[in-house]
Order: sequence, then C-alpha cells, then structure tokens
Amino acid sequence: MKMIATARAHPNIAFIKFWGLEDELNRIPANGSLSMNIAPLATTTTVEFDSDLKEDALTLNGVKVTGESLLRAQHFMDRIRRLAGETVYARIHSENNFPMGVGLASSASGFAALALAGTTALGLDLSERALSGLARFGSGSACRSIPGGFVEWLVDPMNGESYAQSMAPPEHWDLADCIVVLSDDHKAVGSEVGMRSAHSSPLQDARVRDADRRLEACRQAILKRDFARLARVTELDSNLMHAVMMTSDPPLYYWHPQSLAVMKAVKAWQGEGLQVTFTLDAGPNVHVITPQENVEEISQCLRRMPGVLDVLIAVPGGPAELVDETGYLRCERYN
Amino acid sequence: MKMIATARAHPNIAFIKFWGLEDELNRIPANGSLSMNIAPLATTTTVEFDSDLKEDALTLNGVKVTGESLLRAQHFMDRIRRLAGETVYARIHSENNFPMGVGLASSASGFAALALAGTTALGLDLSERALSGLARFGSGSACRSIPGGFVEWLVDPMNGESYAQSMAPPEHWDLADCIVVLSDDHKAVGSEVGMRSAHSSPLQDARVRDADRRLEACRQAILKRDFARLARVTELDSNLMHAVMMTSDPPLYYWHPQSLAVMKAVKAWQGEGLQVTFTLDAGPNVHVITPQENVEEISQCLRRMPGVLDVLIAVPGGPAELVDETGYLRCERYN
Repeated sequence: MKMIATARAHPNIAFIKFWGLEDELNRIPANGSLSMNIAPLATTTTVEFDSDLKEDALTLNGVKVTGESLLRAQHFMDRIRRLAGETVYARIHSENNFPMGVGLASSASGFAALALAGTTALGLDLSERALSGLARFGSGSACRSIPGGFVEWLVDPMNGESYAQSMAPPEHWDLADCIVVLSDDHKAVGSEVGMRSAHSSPLQDARVRDADRRLEACRQAILKRDFARLARVTELDSNLMHAVMMTSDPPLYYWHPQSLAVMKAVKAWQGEGLQVTFTLDAGPNVHVITPQENVEEISQCLRRMPGVLDVLIAVPGGPAELVDETGYLRCERYN
Repeated sequence: MKMIATARAHPNIAFIKFWGLEDELNRIPANGSLSMNIAPLATTTTVEFDSDLKEDALTLNGVKVTGESLLRAQHFMDRIRRLAGETVYARIHSENNFPMGVGLASSASGFAALALAGTTALGLDLSERALSGLARFGSGSACRSIPGGFVEWLVDPMNGESYAQSMAPPEHWDLADCIVVLSDDHKAVGSEVGMRSAHSSPLQDARVRDADRRLEACRQAILKRDFARLARVTELDSNLMHAVMMTSDPPLYYWHPQSLAVMKAVKAWQGEGLQVTFTLDAGPNVHVITPQENVEEISQCLRRMPGVLDVLIAVPGGPAELVDETGYLRCERYN
C-alpha cells in the first residue's frame, strides 16, 4: 500500500458564525453555523506516511513548521492514526494558493485537506459526514470545508456527533466574495484561543439563543436566493459575533478602523440600491458579498479605499477533493 | 412676581449608559445609569413667562428654533405649567458654551437648565429629587445633570418615580474627560429616537439584565477611586450599548472609523501602563477619561491623530444652579 495522498479544500466564509464551544472535549459548537466555500482559494495538502519517521513533520508553503502549529497538526494526525489503528508518522506538505500572512484564516481549508489526505493515505474511506465530523477536531470551521457549496454545520450534542452538510451546490447562487485585505499582520489572538473567552461576554448566551432564528432566516435566504434577506441576517450575525468579542474579558477588537470604513461604505452602497453585504471573521478583513455581476464595480470601489492592500475575488467553491500531487483533480469524490 | 429665571447645567458623560425605556409613558429607563457631570461645558437658559405670548418661543445660541426641537421644548414646558397650575407661555433663551454641531449632545444640560429655570420662574421650589425626576421627561439623561459630581440615575418602576442623585461631589476624584471631536455632522439618528429600537436587538435584554452588576462595579470603582476597575466596566458598558445599537433593526452605527482608531489607541496606552479609558455616547466622539495629571500628555497625543477636529478638556462638574442673566452664579442651591 502506498501510504500517500493529496487533497485540496477551499476556505469558507460563514454567514452565520461559529464562536464558542458548548462541549470543548467533543468539539460541539455553541450554535449551528452556515457558510459558503470560497474558490479558487484553496489549500492543497500531501500526506505521506513513512515508517522511518520519528514524528510528524509539516511544511507550509515550503517552510518547516514548528511549535504550537506543528503540535496542533500532530494531535490531529494522532486522531487519524487512532481511527486507522496505525502508529506510523507522516510528512505533510501543505500549500495555500492565497496570500499568506494577510490575516486570512487557512485553518479551515488546511484541516479539511489534511483530514481527507491523511485518512485516504491510511486507506480509510470515510463518508463525507464522518470526514466533516473528523475535520472539526482540527479546527471547528474546517468541518464546513469538507462538503461543497453552501454548507451548514449541524449541532447534535445529544449523541456527540456534529458535522456539516451541503444545503446547496456552488452553482445554486452566483454570489461573489470580494475579500478586502486590510492588514498583513498575523492575528494577535487566533480564533481557537479567542473563542474560549466567548462565555465571559454578557452577550454570548443571547447570541447563541437567537441562533436558530438566524439560521432559519439564512437558510431561507439562500434557498430562495433572496439577497436582501441574506444581507440583513449576515450583517446582524457578524455584528453579534464581534459584539461578543468586544465585550469579552479581556475584550477582543478584531475590527480595524478601516474595517468599519468598508462596512459603512457597504451600507451606503445598499442605500443607493446595490445588492451588497459584508461579514467579518475573527480578523480585520472584510468579506464583501455581492452577486457576481456587481464584482467589477464593487471591487474597483473597494480598491480605491484608503488602507486597502488587496481585494481577492472568490466564488462559491466545491467540496474537499482528492487531487494528484500537481494539484489536478484525481476524482470527484462526492457526487 | 417677576416670572423670569436663569439656570445653568453641565452635560454629563455616562460610565454606565442609559439606552432604552422600560416604560415610555413614565420615562422609566430599562436600566440604571451612572455618570459624571462635565464642566466647564454648560448650557445657560433663561425662561421668561409673558402673558402676551401665544406659544413658547425658543432661541438656541441666538438662533430661533422651530420644528421638532421646538415642539419637544414646548411639551416639556406644558409639564412645568401643569405642575404650577399656570397657562402662561414663555420666551426661552438657551446658550451652550461648547461648540455646537460637533455631535455633542446638549439635550442633557439643556433640559436640566430648562427644568430649573422654568420651575423657578413659575415660583416652584422643587427638591433636587423632584427636579431631576422632572428633567428626565425632557431628555432621559437630563435627570443626571441636576445633581452634582458623580451621579446615579435610580430606577424605581414600582411607584413610577425615577430620578438621579449624587453619589460623590465633583472634587471626590480628579478625573478629566478629553472629548475627542471627530465629526461636525449632526447625528443621523438622535438618541431619543434611536433607543426606541433598542428592544429589536437580540442583545438588549442581556445588556439590561447584567446592568446591576456593572452599576455596582462602577459605584465601587468611583468610591474607591479604582481607575483600573472603572476602565474595565466603562469600556465594557460602552461596547455593550454600541453592540445593541449595531444589532438593532435597523442597525445604528454611531462609531466612525476614527472612533475605533481612538479606542484602539487608548487600549495601546493602557498596555503601556497609562491610566486611561474611553466611552462613547450615541455619536462618533470619544470621551477619553484619565486622571487630570495625564491630560496634557494624552490630549496632545489625541490631537495628533488623523481625523481629530478638536479635543475639549472637561473635569467633574457641579449641579444645575440658578445664575443671574449674565451667567454668574446666583445662589448655591444644593449644599
């Protein structure tokens, strides 16, 4: 058996956010979440098990990874080994095709690709559901990068199962995500650490209690391609998460002044009748969502704003897939 | 009887904010609030009743006021007339000694001065408590500009009474408020209108439910002059209010990008060991609170920041007082 496999996965942008775990051990989130995979942004990861290795080794875009980031990958590999009943270590090579160090989280696409490549290399053939459930142990939002298109992370704390599933394929809705890159700083506080303080905000319970209502509004907006409804619930949900962050102890301020400037520009464009909305993850960059027909106009306006380093254009992406080592698709896994 | 009186009152800046009414008719706030009067900023108002008048007339800094603002003052004058059993109308001349049209709310100092001048001119001699309870019908936060120094607005929905009282005199704590003026726009949505939508935020209930804890923390911080504690609860409370605003339907974005830049500068200065904190009312201007010994250093840093139009320096102020028409103190009313 050749113990090597390569997989590719897209990051995702959440319309309804994940922030805070209900059950840290089983990685059950406090609330369900709903996202869109964003292509062509992708992480491509090759995992090669080798009995000569004394531990897992990881390179990211050709650079050897050490410290906390390596440890996190190793713990995830331990979980894959336990599933397969193996003890052999692996060389992991991971490549992001989107700019590094611009505050774009690559943990979702990274752990989704690692889950698929790692399990395949060890001969496991997991269902999409099992693979998604596995990926969440690497990074919560990684479970949403396993299925394709518009994806919901279902919470099921009763039996400890929690995984994401596609609610609509990428071609369901011609949306675009204009990712406004405002900072090339690495985050001061990563989301996995930051969300541990979510419960210290007086607002987290209220945010979570209201989540089912927002999820249903977002589902309906997507199924009916109702942009105005999507905009309302997406902005509300983003503001709710950042409200929790800014009222946690210690408070987390992920917004930059220019993030707010972009948000306000989006509100002004809405006032002029444009279909456009915004959402921010745990970082300063603003995801400006709009029908693809508006991308040219909106991305030009965004590029002219002060403080904008770059605007990346993304569209709904497919599921995590096996590819050959050059990155070409090896098979259509889920269809 | 000469039916004329002049009164002066300071605006106030709230450490624990008022946002949303529990009982609109009786003007009972959803939660208690706690503020500091800020001198030398003041509104000086002369009320002269004249039986020749057909309605109340109002000038603000020499300019005739009409429309909604006049109506609001007239309704308040009706309440004073009912108290006194009078029907005569008045000329009202009101002067703010702080820049107008820079987004600084003058309704607190304005209605406090109007309450004192109006009742005095009609021969009423209300207690501080009654005067404060009256002022809240003009503008909620006006009740906190009647007593001096550090002031708490007590909620007492049981008997429909609600008024503010001083918890410490101005000289109790040598704090300063460096008011960072970022905009000369008038607010798009005034606070009296904006707060009517407070209940539409999924976060308002949680903000209100947690208010007693914050009030107690703030009381203790003020009584013990514990700056670090004051800073924590003040920033949290400001962020909680703006969280409610930004998640209301429709959302209210009072922060400007530069407001966030000032907030983040304050956080950075705290990191360097400076005693400094921030709070924002329903507008973009940032109130940077610090011990008076830091004012020179901090106001210079603030003035150098981009977008800063002006920095006004204020210190704890006394109660609303009767003055002669030239603005000189006529008597020490409450001591």
